[in-house]
Amino acid sequence: MCQSCEAALQPVEPSGFTKVSEDSHRLSEAINSNPYGPNPADFLSNVLSFELIESTLREGEQFANAFFTTETKIQIAKALDDFGVEYIELTSPVASEQSRRDCEAICKLGLKAKILTHIRCHMDDAKVAVETGVDGVDVVIGTSLFLREFSHGKDMTYIAKSAVEVIEFVKLKGVEIRFSSEDSFRSDLVDLLNIYKTVDKIGVNRVGIADTVGCANPRQVYELVRTLKSVVSCDIECHFHNDTGCAIANAYTALEAGAKLIDVSVLGIGERNGITPLGGLMARMIAADRAHVLLKYKLHKLRDLENLVAEAVQVNIPFNNPITGFCAFTHKAGIHAKAILANPSTYEILSPSDFGLTRYIHFANRLTGWNAIKSRVDQLNLHLTDEQCKEVTDKIKKLGDVRQLNIDDVDSIIKDFHQNVSIPSLDPDAVVLA
Amino acid sequence: MCQSCEAALQPVEPSGFTKVSEDSHRLSEAINSNPYGPNPADFLSNVLSFELIESTLREGEQFANAFFTTETKIQIAKALDDFGVEYIELTSPVASEQSRRDCEAICKLGLKAKILTHIRCHMDDAKVAVETGVDGVDVVIGTSLFLREFSHGKDMTYIAKSAVEVIEFVKLKGVEIRFSSEDSFRSDLVDLLNIYKTVDKIGVNRVGIADTVGCANPRQVYELVRTLKSVVSCDIECHFHNDTGCAIANAYTALEAGAKLIDVSVLGIGERNGITPLGGLMARMIAADRAHVLLKYKLHKLRDLENLVAEAVQVNIPFNNPITGFCAFTHKAGIHAKAILANPSTYEILSPSDFGLTRYIHFANRLTGWNAIKSRVDQLNLHLTDEQCKEVTDKIKKLGDVRQLNIDDVDSIIKDFHQNVSIPSLDPDAVVLA
Repeated sequence: MCQSCEAALQPVEPSGFTKVSEDSHRLSEAINSNPYGPNPADFLSNVLSFELIESTLREGEQFANAFFTTETKIQIAKALDDFGVEYIELTSPVASEQSRRDCEAICKLGLKAKILTHIRCHMDDAKVAVETGVDGVDVVIGTSLFLREFSHGKDMTYIAKSAVEVIEFVKLKGVEIRFSSEDSFRSDLVDLLNIYKTVDKIGVNRVGIADTVGCANPRQVYELVRTLKSVVSCDIECHFHNDTGCAIANAYTALEAGAKLIDVSVLGIGERNGITPLGGLMARMIAADRAHVLLKYKLHKLRDLENLVAEAVQVNIPFNNPITGFCAFTHKAGIHAKAILANPSTYEILSPSDFGLTRYIHFANRLTGWNAIKSRVDQLNLHLTDEQCKEVTDKIKKLGDVRQLNIDDVDSIIKDFHQNVSIPSLDPDAVVLA
Repeated sequence: MCQSCEAALQPVEPSGFTKVSEDSHRLSEAINSNPYGPNPADFLSNVLSFELIESTLREGEQFANAFFTTETKIQIAKALDDFGVEYIELTSPVASEQSRRDCEAICKLGLKAKILTHIRCHMDDAKVAVETGVDGVDVVIGTSLFLREFSHGKDMTYIAKSAVEVIEFVKLKGVEIRFSSEDSFRSDLVDLLNIYKTVDKIGVNRVGIADTVGCANPRQVYELVRTLKSVVSCDIECHFHNDTGCAIANAYTALEAGAKLIDVSVLGIGERNGITPLGGLMARMIAADRAHVLLKYKLHKLRDLENLVAEAVQVNIPFNNPITGFCAFTHKAGIHAKAILANPSTYEILSPSDFGLTRYIHFANRLTGWNAIKSRVDQLNLHLTDEQCKEVTDKIKKLGDVRQLNIDDVDSIIKDFHQNVSIPSLDPDAVVLA
């Protein structure tokens, strides 16, 4: 056990729990502190100063369904810029003739975001890239034995030589340069650190780590980034695929370890099942520091941005998408609904209104509770006692056992019940007339 | 820098990279070792001995769209049992009359999996639960100041007292018992450790940690689980919501820290956007130890299981779902396709055949490369030289710039090209006749 935990255990006897009545100052402390904030032990953490490299128009174009026309690319680039991303990364201008023309067109838009393009570590590519008008070039080469054997077939000496040549050429043109390895977590650590140290000395703006196969885990990411941080003085960028569902967590952990920039795409679209999604990472970062994220990005535009890209690549927003999934702010079980009605922070750290969305209490089901039903009774502007609310809740739960309910079902039951319990106080004549 | 990294840097000069020709033994080493395997520094790790508490029929029933009939519940329970999960958790029998009857019916099925039900920390609930025939009871109570203030309004002394009463009652009935806090990461650490220590002493089978609001991050999880591990001797179970997209990573990190059981549901369905998904966790665990996972679970049944639940709750499988998303094994960019064709391990750690699925090379687009097209030429049983393949690839990329392509488009271009280059060798008369 660590010292702080041991210390924490000392002052109180196992059975001596503090009373709730004495908890009021602790509650206000708890409300004002954030257990999900940056870890104070991470001296190099960039959780409060991260930047985004938005790659929907590069990694995203490698998504199976993606075919972006020039108009669509421009529309997406403008929307990303408006959202507030720091960098927009585009497909290599050597991928196709149209890719080059689109790259030039987006550079001419005069966006606030810096425009990058992503090329192989090769002078042929670099020469075309710097002529497009981009602010920066992202160079990548496979460094794992797998990629060296089965992709480009080059050794580390060759990789270092071409990296130096390309980097010096791009720097000479006054363009930002990033050097990244590919499949970093299956690369030899010595090879990796050597090449990063070499390119850092020549003066790259950033070095990149890429989990190309999407299998790295958070603590492994933390170790590699922290080690790299002690070897280079430039910024560190990270790129995480999502094959094993850890792309958001890995991105957050990389920032904790001192990485500065995270590659994202809208809905995470990319090769296979994609990379760190922009929206999911926003959710993660808001939990750590809401004020900072709200200041930097127009979160209320997230839903439109996701809809724009989803339509362009013909997919539906996943039902379980962070923030914008249809049920991300829906509370169902009676015990949850009760607490949410008393204070939304009980079961919600993210606030739907930050994204222009609304909370929904799902009360039309057999798991419902009388607090949720009482809230609905109030919404309907009816008046029932707590006991009556419990009674009508029983009726609703009974019907909920028989079939799926909708709001109209529940409202009908409540109104019938209300009419019945209200009869005694009504004028008997009026009832006869009704 | 840690010692091992420093040591790793010593023997090689920054410019002295090993040649690929000398890499053959390192390649075979790399193929046989697994950088994504358990971290040898985690002495208490359960990455190789984890168990699943499958909660589609409890947490999943709290998903907005879920209304399970008795028949559907039985069908899902049988499918989960066949898949190989260790525990199946059911909605509390006090939630509704039908919930109780369904719980009894599933207990009578005689499944291999142990059947659990999930109740509030209350004798009324416990008495009903033990009469249903379940193998175990999962007890939960909110321990954070938020839930104590806005949900049940009880202090820690009351919580401890009712926990002890419920636990002793359930144990006396010969039924397994788990005690879990709710909203654990916003609970006071001293309160938490005290109550866990208390219930561990009375002899619970498991204690549970729950990230009820879905905002914990992996290193935070590691710290709490490791600390708890030093306080209790029973097993530790973890429950992670996915509001900030970290539920899979948090589950993995909890196992690294010594947790033994993970709560999952099919497609992650549950309150809001749900919990750790069964399929995503399988992907994560296979990356760590394929043999172990293949031995325990029938992975080739995953797709059917997901389809069964998706249909029951009327959602589509998310396009980017791990493993079963429509593009999880689709490779598009030319550079990826080339390497995948040479050796699938270059860009794939998960093997689609483990899940009864197939790999797909997406070659009908402007990002395609000549290696992917050459492979298609071979599939069509045509014969073109490498130079000819590069030439026809240029034609395909040009059309891919103009519009979205499908396989028929590409095949037509290849066949036309093949016919043209083959003409000189044909009988001129035959061409005239054609």
